[in-house]
Amino acid sequence: MIGIGVDVGGSFTKIAATDGKKILRMFETPTITAKGKNYFIKNTASAIIRMASFFEGKKFSVVVGVAGDIDYQKGVARFCPNFLQWRNVKIAGPLKKLTGLSCRVENDANMAAWGAYSFELGKKYRNTAVITLGTGIGGGIILDGKLYRGANFCAGEIGHTKIVLDGEKCNCGMRGCLEAYAGCYGIVRRAKKEGLKVSDAASLNKAADLGDPAAKKIWQDTGYYLGVATANLCLLINPDAVVFSGGISKAHRHFMPSLRRVLKEQSVKSPFRRLKIKIAKSAHLGAIGSALFALEHE
Amino acid sequence: MIGIGVDVGGSFTKIAATDGKKILRMFETPTITAKGKNYFIKNTASAIIRMASFFEGKKFSVVVGVAGDIDYQKGVARFCPNFLQWRNVKIAGPLKKLTGLSCRVENDANMAAWGAYSFELGKKYRNTAVITLGTGIGGGIILDGKLYRGANFCAGEIGHTKIVLDGEKCNCGMRGCLEAYAGCYGIVRRAKKEGLKVSDAASLNKAADLGDPAAKKIWQDTGYYLGVATANLCLLINPDAVVFSGGISKAHRHFMPSLRRVLKEQSVKSPFRRLKIKIAKSAHLGAIGSALFALEHE
Repeated sequence: MIGIGVDVGGSFTKIAATDGKKILRMFETPTITAKGKNYFIKNTASAIIRMASFFEGKKFSVVVGVAGDIDYQKGVARFCPNFLQWRNVKIAGPLKKLTGLSCRVENDANMAAWGAYSFELGKKYRNTAVITLGTGIGGGIILDGKLYRGANFCAGEIGHTKIVLDGEKCNCGMRGCLEAYAGCYGIVRRAKKEGLKVSDAASLNKAADLGDPAAKKIWQDTGYYLGVATANLCLLINPDAVVFSGGISKAHRHFMPSLRRVLKEQSVKSPFRRLKIKIAKSAHLGAIGSALFALEHE
Repeated sequence: MIGIGVDVGGSFTKIAATDGKKILRMFETPTITAKGKNYFIKNTASAIIRMASFFEGKKFSVVVGVAGDIDYQKGVARFCPNFLQWRNVKIAGPLKKLTGLSCRVENDANMAAWGAYSFELGKKYRNTAVITLGTGIGGGIILDGKLYRGANFCAGEIGHTKIVLDGEKCNCGMRGCLEAYAGCYGIVRRAKKEGLKVSDAASLNKAADLGDPAAKKIWQDTGYYLGVATANLCLLINPDAVVFSGGISKAHRHFMPSLRRVLKEQSVKSPFRRLKIKIAKSAHLGAIGSALFALEHE
């Protein structure tokens, strides 16, 4: 049996295959949403078929990770914020039809969480929360060694927990969400307010690498905001480990010290005493997690 | 088999007994901490023995719910904020010795959560969070029909999640915790700042009942703060139901409308769409929950 994991990102779709022992193959292909839902599904199906073609004679289990509000039972993406705000896109059924393979759909951050728990941490920490730092901020929660989806499958939405009353505007429409401060656009917005000429988080990271004090301060503040939201999460679910993944986590050198300081300064000590804080090593946790999840939950 | 539940409160200890079908008996006795840990344990043991004496010839399973940081595996209260800040009090072992019965210790809010889930809601909502509103604010979480304790048994600490950056001082030593705004002392502090002559939450409730607009405003704000923290909890763990219990919940008429408004106004709709918000009916959920938990988890 081969697990195929598909991580549908805003620009690129990553595909990984595993036999459970190692990652056998990985490639990426552009995510095409501008031509409509049907074309998107067909394009995703071709990628899956291409991956399967490398493993002739094998059986397959496929999981597709998509950002948004996913009904994994019905195989439907109820809401995809990154894809023209699509609603109720049938994904699992059409993919199964087109590929002839068992296909399921899951939330992408949940799959990144499975990748962190199962692949990177070797299932050592039974209660693991993953915080995905990109344009948006997502989260996935593994409790007692199992993916915890919540009552209607949307647990882990740390990006939209409020950390500042009447704070900055978030892409979701609310004010003061973590994402509005520590999502890519929130970070760049704060940097621009301070007069920094940066277009994205990567250039801000570079500026901090080069020692720019204003850039370093923006990352320090980012760590503070992330620390507040992470502390709130730990007080509520008391995990063994929290893993930060996603593009923004590359700047960990600049934001982790202030993040750790927030956790260290908490008065209620117990949830933080043995807590492990990790930065994901792989940049492909979504695809890898999906592939392993497909295999381990066929 | 009879389940005996003991809820050790700051002033009074409530004791309940159940056969799993109904609550057979309940009484209360003063909580005596001023004479030291040994006396406290002896006093608690006498209450358990007294309760057991009503059910001659039966077998018993006893759970004692205590506020604080509880290691249920070792039977130790690592930290009891209400009891002279006691540390590492052995509870289960000494009680077993003194009573001759199987005794365990659990966090009191966790037991209130079990009471809400198992007793009041008839196990209808598999993912239920309980928020206990008193002098302090605690919480307990039932996930997939099981008590969720967390990595080192201190999940559910919603009272110390931060809702206001650099906000009001909390009893824990931090600033901006939910408890600093919506715990009894936080509510009274805000009322006094507004010039209201109230000594406790009950009198503030009374003032609002009589139509005092300033008192009503304090409760509205309380609902707002509770709403922000509850929304954060729902975004993270996406429960089926949230139950408010404890003394402050008696003022629900005054704080629930603004609390519900916060939940209704969220942009990320899914965690709130079918969410049930309830006020606990029983004032004895801690003792009842402990008794049922004792019976159901012997």
